[in-house]
Amino acid sequence: MGEFELLINELIKFRNDRNWEQFHNSKDLALAISIEAAELNELFLWKSAEDAEKVDKTKLKEELADVFAFSLLLAAKHGFDVKQIVLDKIRKNNEKYPVDKSKGNAKKYNEL
Amino acid sequence: MGEFELLINELIKFRNDRNWEQFHNSKDLALAISIEAAELNELFLWKSAEDAEKVDKTKLKEELADVFAFSLLLAAKHGFDVKQIVLDKIRKNNEKYPVDKSKGNAKKYNEL
Amino acid sequence: MGEFELLINELIKFRNDRNWEQFHNSKDLALAISIEAAELNELFLWKSAEDAEKVDKTKLKEELADVFAFSLLLAAKHGFDVKQIVLDKIRKNNEKYPVDKSKGNAKKYNEL
Amino acid sequence: MGEFELLINELIKFRNDRNWEQFHNSKDLALAISIEAAELNELFLWKSAEDAEKVDKTKLKEELADVFAFSLLLAAKHGFDVKQIVLDKIRKNNEKYPVDKSKGNAKKYNEL
Repeated sequence: MGEFELLINELIKFRNDRNWEQFHNSKDLALAISIEAAELNELFLWKSAEDAEKVDKTKLKEELADVFAFSLLLAAKHGFDVKQIVLDKIRKNNEKYPVDKSKGNAKKYNEL
Repeated sequence: MGEFELLINELIKFRNDRNWEQFHNSKDLALAISIEAAELNELFLWKSAEDAEKVDKTKLKEELADVFAFSLLLAAKHGFDVKQIVLDKIRKNNEKYPVDKSKGNAKKYNEL
Repeated sequence: MGEFELLINELIKFRNDRNWEQFHNSKDLALAISIEAAELNELFLWKSAEDAEKVDKTKLKEELADVFAFSLLLAAKHGFDVKQIVLDKIRKNNEKYPVDKSKGNAKKYNEL
Repeated sequence: MGEFELLINELIKFRNDRNWEQFHNSKDLALAISIEAAELNELFLWKSAEDAEKVDKTKLKEELADVFAFSLLLAAKHGFDVKQIVLDKIRKNNEKYPVDKSKGNAKKYNEL
């Protein structure tokens, strides 16, 4: 079994044990991703980029795991193959951000 | 090779081809996750939960893929085993949200 | 004294009493707005739009006040006249969203 | 007329001209604040705190104005007096963050 399938199975088991499927519509799952992402960002707030690297690893793992968990549940809800959608997006970004134009600068594709 | 390793390799190749590693500190990667999560949420804005399910699947795949991409890059930066951190978090949530107390309600663990 | 000026004075006094100006660069103030906005959203998570209206008003006031507080501090940092920038944006949106095209639909201006 | 009342009147006129009140439930207004906050943050993404200060002022004004606009609409929906809720929150924070304990450090109140 692939890693994504294994995690999705565990997450769905956790959810179904609690009858939480009723809450997991796409809109609220996306909102949950956003809220977890904010909790992740809070670990870095008011810190310089350098000091931010000294973040507590245990907390970082937990907040990042929460982002993955809700992202996996949203992907599973729509039957997406996570590996495939990420590979497809990398391919698309390869076109949006040609190496010769974007090398060494962080401009958005519409500013290149 | 596991799915996470494969994706991380592709993402790092994409990044290194553009010399973007210099921008990818933990604080900005977390911020990027948050911004991509907001773009994902924008697909559902002003829509009822029901109408939200009729979202354009192509856009949903792309926005969700962006969340995964930056989350994977942040995990890779810290050498996290994504499968393991998600499994660990599920285990921890099993303790925070005991089935008998949380079944059928969406209360936060500190309100149970 | 106008309401914005009064609030900004109070917020800056609170900040300066704690020597927190050193942390209040524009990037972190914007991040703080985003984190407070997520805490505001958490009040509504897993709730239908109808149930969301029954939110605890005390919590809603506090989370919304936090969004205003950091937004005012960011505006003050750049010397913006809050009344003016909001009026300017309404004027701009009047052009982006002509009444005859946008009446009764929530489409984004680039989809009109 | 106070500045908040004036802005709220203008925002509600803009909204009612377009029949958008139907979309402006509290949950979606909060989500809109969050999305606008992310657009604000995008102006600073991949930039050092120092470079972030050189941000395009016109864009900064517009994104910040959007955060204010939806925050004002949410406040108005619940009949909140914005000046009062911000002053109340400053008073509360004065207790959470006593000057002698929080001077010069950015720790969260529960870590003081």
